[in-house]
Amino acid sequence: MKLYELVGCDPKKGFSPFVWRTKLALAHKGLNYETVPVTFTEIKETLAFAGSKTVPVLVDGENVISDSWDIACYLEDTYPDHPSLFGGDTGRAAANLLGIQVGMPVLFPLFRTLVADIHGRLNRIDQDYFRETREPRIDCTIEEAAVDFEGSLKVFQLGLASYNAYLKTSSFFSGEKPAYADYIIYSSFLWAKRTSPKVILDKDDPIAKWLERMDGLFNGLGAKVQLIEKD
Amino acid sequence: MKLYELVGCDPKKGFSPFVWRTKLALAHKGLNYETVPVTFTEIKETLAFAGSKTVPVLVDGENVISDSWDIACYLEDTYPDHPSLFGGDTGRAAANLLGIQVGMPVLFPLFRTLVADIHGRLNRIDQDYFRETREPRIDCTIEEAAVDFEGSLKVFQLGLASYNAYLKTSSFFSGEKPAYADYIIYSSFLWAKRTSPKVILDKDDPIAKWLERMDGLFNGLGAKVQLIEKD
Repeated sequence: MKLYELVGCDPKKGFSPFVWRTKLALAHKGLNYETVPVTFTEIKETLAFAGSKTVPVLVDGENVISDSWDIACYLEDTYPDHPSLFGGDTGRAAANLLGIQVGMPVLFPLFRTLVADIHGRLNRIDQDYFRETREPRIDCTIEEAAVDFEGSLKVFQLGLASYNAYLKTSSFFSGEKPAYADYIIYSSFLWAKRTSPKVILDKDDPIAKWLERMDGLFNGLGAKVQLIEKD
Repeated sequence: MKLYELVGCDPKKGFSPFVWRTKLALAHKGLNYETVPVTFTEIKETLAFAGSKTVPVLVDGENVISDSWDIACYLEDTYPDHPSLFGGDTGRAAANLLGIQVGMPVLFPLFRTLVADIHGRLNRIDQDYFRETREPRIDCTIEEAAVDFEGSLKVFQLGLASYNAYLKTSSFFSGEKPAYADYIIYSSFLWAKRTSPKVILDKDDPIAKWLERMDGLFNGLGAKVQLIEKD
């Protein structure tokens, strides 16, 4: 299998949270793959074959699948004898809902928190593209978001309140064992770890303890993730 | 089985959203029960036997269970041969998370929207208790919340955005068939329907279409719910 993943100035350090969802799903299923790095400005041409304007794109033999959610469903349906990502149809529906729910209260303020750090880890040509496409999303300049990052971080932490409350009763978002619901959340933290030196959690939060449990999975796949060095 | 449920001035019209979760769970499991009406000021004495300060309380033979989530888990574990509420352990974890997630962005602004209407449907003695215990939760008087109900309603509708987005891809929150995740959300609308004449949804919202599907379940259990008449 071949997985197209987004990179900045270091082609070995993919950072997209949606690609991380796929990498974790592949690890959960115990499937091998190689990665193909793509920068922001290469996406259009490189992923044209897949009819996709976004990463991840997965190529599995004859099959080309884009969108992290569609890829998760593809893996679950195509490899049913490997460990389940959803634990059944109800769990699949719930993971789909969670992937949508995490957007506005969690991913969006985290993006505003990280946006200047991400920008600083891109090649110059990608920086221009990133500014042009992302500033309209945050309704301010990257520099303004950088100045106000503590406000965004606070919104992000408030957005985690229900997740922290839940983790007082359970080890993982999928129950006793981690599965796709956990990867949806964990991918956001790997995104942050790759792109920013900022400390975004209080270490006593239940979600910080859960992160430690997640870091222990798949031979430390997430634990080994390092910050992209600035050029 | 005996289910203790909260009522206002009409002992036949229970309105607590958490009791509705249990009623829908019992209907889903195909289990029969009788209800015992309890008013706000009766709760302490009537439910002392259960060690609970809140409804619902379910009595099933020798077993006394309180808290809607614990009751759902009890029913699932005690009646495993009846239709499943969770569809497995992952679905159970997801329903637990959803029950927490729906609180702040959905239930809380809906409570502020309804609070004056609920107050108007209680007996005088319960009105005093309700004001004393609920005004601190909404950080204003009931009358102030009534004046600003459109603001609260807007927050509630914004809180439904991710649920509306999800329903563009699926019939029910539990997938192709309704289950406990759906009852968590549906119970909020039955609460509103019992206590308030306000129109709280745009009829073109995906969630309004889903409500119609939910109204068709269990011989119209929810469809038949009527507003409590003012005394």
